[in-house]
Amino acid sequence: MPITPAQLDGAMAWRYATKVFDPSRRIDAVTWSALENALVQSPSSYGLQPWKFLVIHDPGLREQLRPESWNQSQITDASHLVVFLVQRQIGPAEADRLITTMAQTRGLDPADLATYRQMIDVDLIHGPRSQQIARWASNQVYIALGTLMTAAALLEVDTCAIEGFDPAAYDRILGLENGPYRSCVVCAVGHRSDSDKHATLAKVRYPASELIEVR
Amino acid sequence: MPITPAQLDGAMAWRYATKVFDPSRRIDAVTWSALENALVQSPSSYGLQPWKFLVIHDPGLREQLRPESWNQSQITDASHLVVFLVQRQIGPAEADRLITTMAQTRGLDPADLATYRQMIDVDLIHGPRSQQIARWASNQVYIALGTLMTAAALLEVDTCAIEGFDPAAYDRILGLENGPYRSCVVCAVGHRSDSDKHATLAKVRYPASELIEVR
Repeated sequence: MPITPAQLDGAMAWRYATKVFDPSRRIDAVTWSALENALVQSPSSYGLQPWKFLVIHDPGLREQLRPESWNQSQITDASHLVVFLVQRQIGPAEADRLITTMAQTRGLDPADLATYRQMIDVDLIHGPRSQQIARWASNQVYIALGTLMTAAALLEVDTCAIEGFDPAAYDRILGLENGPYRSCVVCAVGHRSDSDKHATLAKVRYPASELIEVR
Repeated sequence: MPITPAQLDGAMAWRYATKVFDPSRRIDAVTWSALENALVQSPSSYGLQPWKFLVIHDPGLREQLRPESWNQSQITDASHLVVFLVQRQIGPAEADRLITTMAQTRGLDPADLATYRQMIDVDLIHGPRSQQIARWASNQVYIALGTLMTAAALLEVDTCAIEGFDPAAYDRILGLENGPYRSCVVCAVGHRSDSDKHATLAKVRYPASELIEVR
């Protein structure tokens, strides 16, 4: 059953970049499961899913990450902390992985998907966009970030996307340095503290008349 | 009132990258208004909103854009076509625009926001991230894209994000070449056609056990 336009409006008005989380309020398991599923189901170009999502529960790890994140309290205090990872390279192995999974999921022979495979080759792996493949890959990760923040708001779960962190330090702390993924962006997820004064500040947006243009 | 986790799961399962839109089915005005509002309210780093959203209704323009989009039928057939634009530069003028709007919205003196302004300066305009400001800016646009696709699915509105287009041709056709924005990504929005065989294909996702890792 679809939600109503008013529910969407309400959720978009309710959400804000939460600065102070209530460390005593955890996201319940059913709600978190749906948010995790939203991450897994997030759309990406060609369906390549050039990502992985680390959910950091270990308090010791959180303590190590916080000073590498401008000491922001959300890192230690939010119910859930998601580190969005992005693939370092998009090459034949990544395309093969998708084609294999697609063939299995849809009961096809991988050979049936040769044209699709070739599109990925020509467009991303060897084509003009291969020059900017790191940007392409991080763009996809931000689709998943947008998906998570919007889905969370509709469930009345608070989020704060965090770009203010040291990716190299994160990669070191999380043992990613020699792996296929690197840290890309972070999102704290949980419930706002009553003491967060940012919750009641007016949201600052340019007027729709400046942002939307109809042609 | 929040939605239920099951509604979120259902919407994520229902959505797919729509290949064939029903050109006779329009998005009703109330629903579109909520989706437009979701774009306007989308979060961005520092709240800088380095974007603009062109909604292309003119059939002649759509006809011109289609051959520059791998001739994909969604360009002409979807109820609404959104071209996401991104700012070419993030400099002092863009920071000033935000600070001015923030001061007006919250009834503050811009001088009260000097620290915030300086953070933007040090981080984005002159700092290390200024080297990759184009990537930073397009990442923000993809948050708005993820927001739109997720919100639409919850309203049972179909979408198809389109990266397969010629940005230079779009910029020429849309008269953006000498302006502050360039075309970044496209999203067709509308209702699926009964003839779209992609609607019933199994969604291809890597298993959660590969995508989610708990630490």
